[in-house]
Amino acid sequence: MSLIVQKFGGSSVKDAQCIKRVAGIIAETYLEGNDVIVVLSAQGDTTDDLIAKAEEINPRASKREMDMLLSTGEQISVALCAMALEAMGLPCVSLTAWQVGIHSTGVHSDARIRKIDSERVRSELDQHHIVIVTGFQGIDRAGDVTTLGRGGSDTSAVALAAAFKADRCQIYTDVDGVYTTDPRIVPNARKLDEVSYDEMLELASQGAQVLHNRSVELAKKFHVHLEVLSSIVKKPGTIVKEVAKVEKTNIAGVAKDTSIACVALVGLQHNPGVAFQVFDLLSKSNINVDVILQSIGRDDSKDITFTVHRKDMDEAVRILEDHRDTLKFDHIQTDDGIGKVSIVGAGLMSNCGVAAKMFEALYEAGINIQMVNTSEIRVSVLLDEEDVNKAVKAIHAKFFDEL
Amino acid sequence: MSLIVQKFGGSSVKDAQCIKRVAGIIAETYLEGNDVIVVLSAQGDTTDDLIAKAEEINPRASKREMDMLLSTGEQISVALCAMALEAMGLPCVSLTAWQVGIHSTGVHSDARIRKIDSERVRSELDQHHIVIVTGFQGIDRAGDVTTLGRGGSDTSAVALAAAFKADRCQIYTDVDGVYTTDPRIVPNARKLDEVSYDEMLELASQGAQVLHNRSVELAKKFHVHLEVLSSIVKKPGTIVKEVAKVEKTNIAGVAKDTSIACVALVGLQHNPGVAFQVFDLLSKSNINVDVILQSIGRDDSKDITFTVHRKDMDEAVRILEDHRDTLKFDHIQTDDGIGKVSIVGAGLMSNCGVAAKMFEALYEAGINIQMVNTSEIRVSVLLDEEDVNKAVKAIHAKFFDEL
Repeated sequence: MSLIVQKFGGSSVKDAQCIKRVAGIIAETYLEGNDVIVVLSAQGDTTDDLIAKAEEINPRASKREMDMLLSTGEQISVALCAMALEAMGLPCVSLTAWQVGIHSTGVHSDARIRKIDSERVRSELDQHHIVIVTGFQGIDRAGDVTTLGRGGSDTSAVALAAAFKADRCQIYTDVDGVYTTDPRIVPNARKLDEVSYDEMLELASQGAQVLHNRSVELAKKFHVHLEVLSSIVKKPGTIVKEVAKVEKTNIAGVAKDTSIACVALVGLQHNPGVAFQVFDLLSKSNINVDVILQSIGRDDSKDITFTVHRKDMDEAVRILEDHRDTLKFDHIQTDDGIGKVSIVGAGLMSNCGVAAKMFEALYEAGINIQMVNTSEIRVSVLLDEEDVNKAVKAIHAKFFDEL
Repeated sequence: MSLIVQKFGGSSVKDAQCIKRVAGIIAETYLEGNDVIVVLSAQGDTTDDLIAKAEEINPRASKREMDMLLSTGEQISVALCAMALEAMGLPCVSLTAWQVGIHSTGVHSDARIRKIDSERVRSELDQHHIVIVTGFQGIDRAGDVTTLGRGGSDTSAVALAAAFKADRCQIYTDVDGVYTTDPRIVPNARKLDEVSYDEMLELASQGAQVLHNRSVELAKKFHVHLEVLSSIVKKPGTIVKEVAKVEKTNIAGVAKDTSIACVALVGLQHNPGVAFQVFDLLSKSNINVDVILQSIGRDDSKDITFTVHRKDMDEAVRILEDHRDTLKFDHIQTDDGIGKVSIVGAGLMSNCGVAAKMFEALYEAGINIQMVNTSEIRVSVLLDEEDVNKAVKAIHAKFFDEL
């Protein structure tokens, strides 16, 4: 007998029919003799509807009260799912984060899980009950409801799998696994049978929507056997684990991100620590910086170029302009018409041919590269936004079709 | 500085505009220098919408999961109300039943409050926060969510007022107080300035919709100064307290109930304890019996007639037929075309003229009385359902217009 954690997202529980289908998947797993912990998100549009209600009353409501409001969404899902399982005659119980004891930090709307109590869930599992838990939420030390921010339900599922040493953590979604690239751009994109935690992390951070980084980081830390699979079609998905079996191509996939913008500080004087100052200022305003490039400019001055999320561009510029006197730069250039394409694969950088092959694909497609950035298992290029899809196709073809 | 508990029902918080109006009432009370605990029901149709969602999935869902589902309704209300107060710049905090610590029995969908923890609410009041609490719900010993059944939010408000020794407990509703009878039937019905707990109890149990018995019982037990008033128009309501000032009429009001049915066991043999057996059987099936009449029939046999809620009539008959052999009766007669009209007033039975005056009013209106039932402060008559409104008008006119 195994313990399996199964997570279903908002689109998988969006109406009565979907909930019944989800209950069918859970029932099958349970009736095969497994213990099952289920984690659910709020139904389809519930969160948006609740946000609309709040905005009508107070567009600047506190995050504490927003969390109080939004956390009702998952509670509705778990109760309805329990009812669907009851209709099938299966023993089950729905539990909220406070009933389980999912303790989080107190940062409303972006809390981190601190620890999970075992008592209640363990007692329900001992009675062979299917346990259905609200995703996305926790309680802080004051006993207030928190929410975990983007990808929160994935994180809840992985955290529960870690806490109860589950044999598998299945993330059900509306695609059937992790692909070598976005199948909407490259129709012959291949589904990966396996991918390593590190590759999945890079794919997730480089724009693959299927799993959120935080859940993958947590899975890696606690060696959770993670599986991404479809809630619609019954077939094997993608397994995320420590070491994935090496593919002949050397790369796991091609990711793209078009939600970025480029900011350049031009004509910085050569005073030491200026880079630290720049990124310290941005970090204090919670602006995440991605690719950073520093180059020598004319007249012994230098330029620092970096990318941020597109929504943060204006604020980044405002913050830097506010510190023009201490930073001492000539002017700021911005570009929100760029995109990023990355290849990800274990051992990629130890195989020098791989980056060259990527650049070759881009050259052959006549695409100009603006910046390059690499990690141990990733090569990213910045390009004009309009070239992004063409680049994904060219690179994917180079690595996956020419074998 | 006083501590005031204010309760608003579902129609008072049904949309953004209503919530803002409620926030205005709360703000006014707070800004006058009072501590305020607010108790809210679920918004207008929320509960019905949630029930519809549940029925689509499982029409026979467990009460435990129904409570889990329905309790989200009040949580939405309290978060939205807090947001409205935040928009006015007022310090406030919304709390669910589990955050307050409203401990109840474990009878899902019909739980009773056992005790209320003081710590969290007291700490919020000490910081001069307006405390907004979910009505209608509690948590049981297992940490599961319960709901309190009909009139539950009134009961929550009175229980909080008792626990924190509030100076006043204001029940805001869509009428502006307790009336001598239903103003929809008798347009010149008078609003009562004061009414005693006992009179209010009889009025509530005899069909007045404005307060639920349980909340009045609790208010009486803990001497809670209760006030019923309008959330729409600002004017004095009705005060419910130990001894109301005596009205010249001797009666507080005329109530009606048309949700009843009459069941008669005809030709019962004279074996001792048969009445006990009948009502014990019904009580074990949670069927409440109201008016009971026992009479000698023909041939030395006797008849027992009683009223039940109309929805319970068929089941009562089924249960009694199942025990025909032990109960030994001839046959059962039922009538679901009846209604009950009551007059309520402190000291009513010590003033023999009052009952006579009621019967006189019915006689003058040509209305036939089927049964009579009395308590210390109430006289009820059973009539044809079609005579009920006419009877209310005639009795009200006799007591309130002829002075």
